[in-house]
Amino acid sequence: MSMSTEKSTAAASECTPEQLSALAMLKSHKRFILTGHVRPDGDCVGAQAALASCLEHMGCEVTVLNPDPIETRYEYLARHVKYHSWDGGALPAHDVVVFLDFNEITRCGRLGEAFAKARSKKLVIDHHISDGAAWWDEAFVDVHASATGLLVHRIHEAIGVEVDLPAAEGIYTSIVSDTGWFKYSNTDAETLRIASEMVEIGVEPSRMFQAIEQRKRPNHPELTGKVLAATHFFCDDRAALVTQPWCEDAVGFDSDDVLDCVRSVAGLEVVLFVKELSDRTCKLSSRSKEWYSVQRLCHDFGGGGHARAAGASFDCSLKDACSRLVAAVEEEFQAHDGGSA
Amino acid sequence: MSMSTEKSTAAASECTPEQLSALAMLKSHKRFILTGHVRPDGDCVGAQAALASCLEHMGCEVTVLNPDPIETRYEYLARHVKYHSWDGGALPAHDVVVFLDFNEITRCGRLGEAFAKARSKKLVIDHHISDGAAWWDEAFVDVHASATGLLVHRIHEAIGVEVDLPAAEGIYTSIVSDTGWFKYSNTDAETLRIASEMVEIGVEPSRMFQAIEQRKRPNHPELTGKVLAATHFFCDDRAALVTQPWCEDAVGFDSDDVLDCVRSVAGLEVVLFVKELSDRTCKLSSRSKEWYSVQRLCHDFGGGGHARAAGASFDCSLKDACSRLVAAVEEEFQAHDGGSA
Repeated sequence: MSMSTEKSTAAASECTPEQLSALAMLKSHKRFILTGHVRPDGDCVGAQAALASCLEHMGCEVTVLNPDPIETRYEYLARHVKYHSWDGGALPAHDVVVFLDFNEITRCGRLGEAFAKARSKKLVIDHHISDGAAWWDEAFVDVHASATGLLVHRIHEAIGVEVDLPAAEGIYTSIVSDTGWFKYSNTDAETLRIASEMVEIGVEPSRMFQAIEQRKRPNHPELTGKVLAATHFFCDDRAALVTQPWCEDAVGFDSDDVLDCVRSVAGLEVVLFVKELSDRTCKLSSRSKEWYSVQRLCHDFGGGGHARAAGASFDCSLKDACSRLVAAVEEEFQAHDGGSA
Repeated sequence: MSMSTEKSTAAASECTPEQLSALAMLKSHKRFILTGHVRPDGDCVGAQAALASCLEHMGCEVTVLNPDPIETRYEYLARHVKYHSWDGGALPAHDVVVFLDFNEITRCGRLGEAFAKARSKKLVIDHHISDGAAWWDEAFVDVHASATGLLVHRIHEAIGVEVDLPAAEGIYTSIVSDTGWFKYSNTDAETLRIASEMVEIGVEPSRMFQAIEQRKRPNHPELTGKVLAATHFFCDDRAALVTQPWCEDAVGFDSDDVLDCVRSVAGLEVVLFVKELSDRTCKLSSRSKEWYSVQRLCHDFGGGGHARAAGASFDCSLKDACSRLVAAVEEEFQAHDGGSA
């Protein structure tokens, strides 16, 4: 185990008292479960890979246990870390559960109930704003961090554990997942500086991009094309709606290219992608650029997310979901235009 | 003028003797013309903005004079630097011409002939491999640098001129242009570290992305969609052809989204985008991932570029251009498969 005491003292001195207390919990226990939210994303599984490496270097026993399996696009992380998905059975013996990249215990589904019943300590490592009462024992939180993986990097530094290549790949995965490959407004100097350090350690950016993003099926361009060809603009071309009616071929379709392409239109503020599922319910993915809160939009329909990227589910037809969404967006634009007029 | 002597001494000590000699030329002259290649790209105009700022801080007179105008997407650079495009008239009085981001004087068109006739000194700042004889007096070259803007950053450091915000925006523009927003294989630790420093100085990554990439017309998603919907795969889904027949609406169409989307297919090696022009000739943009040299393909049809990104023009119908290209790619794949079998 390689430690750098001087560096760790400096890094620890930048921590808040709450963060130092969270570090003390990591240092004083032996058996950890690391968990994530349902359908864990790149930031979540990347941060888990990095923290697993850190704790193992500290001599701890670590189990990564998520409510859902890891996506195959992150298989390079799974070469070093075993990602278990919960089968409903007994939890492994543990002292502490670490919740990475979320702060509502309900977001890990029924697994959350099992954790709530367990008498272990609860530690949250997250960068989301929390609006509920604290249910955890300790928290290492910074809502200004672009990714949870950056917080795990700070934990490495504060404890004095060197970042090895598997941890570096995890941290890089976290960063690129939550900053849209360094393009979103949360991309700050720390984000790029730590990404640079991860490349020094051996991460290859283009291989990472290939592994995560360039693994689509041959029908992807055609499906993307069909969706894009029917882009519907409204609110004076500041909002756009794209839809995908149910079809067998579109199972697992990745809508990022659609959202990125529509968002590249000058002056566009919000884009809605509504997909019809096999049971004829619908799923919304939405993105905005400057001022429109898609988080609020999605929250109004029972979903959630961030201000500039959020999602929701609809228990109605594609047509009805679209009418309700367009009406809601039009209302918000009217209020915005009125307010700024 | 703010200088940091210690830092500049350290940076200068990392320069080659050839680079130190180039620095001496910059320090010992007063009147500079900065020039670029035809249709100057982001790396070229970004490096020019940064070097103009550096030389002005050193008290020099600087004129940026290119064979072609700067694209409107880089208008934020043009707020601080006046980008002249040559009208065929007399060159302004000058001691040194600096050629940024290229090393063949013919690549600045007829302006190159005017420079060749002038009795001024010639300095090349570039990261491309040169295969011709040296025609310049001095050269600040590193073929391992991901962008020419990084070389200009090294010049700031070696001379000891602080990077101001206009220079930082230029350097960031250079970097993202030539690394595909940190996704190409040339993205190294220096690239990300300097990008981080530019953000410290005040560059806003998401604003930069918006300025450069998110300025398309509202018909962009539909045009992209139509092209993508007709993607034709061949060579066992390892090659793809996408075409755009002539239409008024498609003038100025940016094919990057098409190329990126097709390239995201797992196992895809090469993608060809062929566009029919108003005079019924065609233009090819091609990209590859791992081994296929699109540079060689394009060279065979009278074009050129890099191994993974190249282009060519065709004086024939869309149908004929596509047949010839598909045949050429199939032949190369057969040779490759035979060679590795």
